[in-house]
Amino acid sequence: MQYPKPITKLIESFSKLPGVGHKTAERLAFYVISDMNDDEATKFARALIDAKRALFECETCAFVTDSNPCSICADGGRDVTMIAVVESSKDVLSLEKMRSFHGRYHVLGGVLSPLDGIGPEDIGIAPLIERLKNEEVTEVILALGATLEGDATSQYLARLLKGTGVRITRIARGLEMGRSIDYADEVTLIRALEGRVEL
Amino acid sequence: MQYPKPITKLIESFSKLPGVGHKTAERLAFYVISDMNDDEATKFARALIDAKRALFECETCAFVTDSNPCSICADGGRDVTMIAVVESSKDVLSLEKMRSFHGRYHVLGGVLSPLDGIGPEDIGIAPLIERLKNEEVTEVILALGATLEGDATSQYLARLLKGTGVRITRIARGLEMGRSIDYADEVTLIRALEGRVEL
Repeated sequence: MQYPKPITKLIESFSKLPGVGHKTAERLAFYVISDMNDDEATKFARALIDAKRALFECETCAFVTDSNPCSICADGGRDVTMIAVVESSKDVLSLEKMRSFHGRYHVLGGVLSPLDGIGPEDIGIAPLIERLKNEEVTEVILALGATLEGDATSQYLARLLKGTGVRITRIARGLEMGRSIDYADEVTLIRALEGRVEL
Repeated sequence: MQYPKPITKLIESFSKLPGVGHKTAERLAFYVISDMNDDEATKFARALIDAKRALFECETCAFVTDSNPCSICADGGRDVTMIAVVESSKDVLSLEKMRSFHGRYHVLGGVLSPLDGIGPEDIGIAPLIERLKNEEVTEVILALGATLEGDATSQYLARLLKGTGVRITRIARGLEMGRSIDYADEVTLIRALEGRVEL
């Protein structure tokens, strides 16, 4: 017996999401079909479309946004002398939630990973250097995950920015090895930020 | 810092899915935003809309379908003397996957649950009785989950159908207690079907 086509297609779409296997995709699809009302399903579909249409990267910091500059770069109350360098937009949100960093961000959009062919020119390093020339930044806080690639990227950036006169720090190893920023709890993130060390 | 609205809405939609908490919803939303291409996102949205628009319940067996009668009821090669009674459309698919039952189905759309206010008139019992009058059914196999509610529903149906001359069986307890049909492995399902007992 074949599933009716609309079911197959919905299962396929759910299967594409990270961490969703075929069995889970089936359950989610049947939840939509049997338990979600038409209005909710329409809202869901609209949210998917809008997320792709209305969002883009801030021209200054590359954070995902629906306005340019983004709400963080446009916020006059933030400390413009500090930039936290993160891997992804998700990481900005993790750091914002703890409400103890009041500087601005720079989203690299990845970390150096020679095995995957990701080099310095593939992530937002050049725009970061440009910002340091044009903005009144006195400290760059490297807030990358405590992974091999995160470490390599931090070391690379520390060497690269050494001559600029800007203070380069890295958030402390409150992060367990292998943990990404995105999954760390808020207390760990606060301690890591407080314990940042000179590189 | 507030998320841009399109992100909030997408996270809200993902949060409505079963087993998806806020953190997972954030991850899924950012996956859509950062890693899914426009075409995939559009397909996903379309699949959601189509699943609600194009699917309905088969008038005979209540299985979710995009044609009436459904492909199973319309299949002349199936044994019309046997009906397997299941709780939901998902259960039909689980049973179909093992390819060893060749009868037809009847989807109740729920099981008796007095605490939740679900009585005999709230699930597809009347249509089942109607089918037994009009079709050449000689055996009804109760294939409900091995839960308290599933058991109560099986007992209720066994009593109700006793006078009809139709053989009433229940799939054997190959299912562990508390396990729903949907999550059982295929071997367990096959054994349960083979070991069905007279009620």
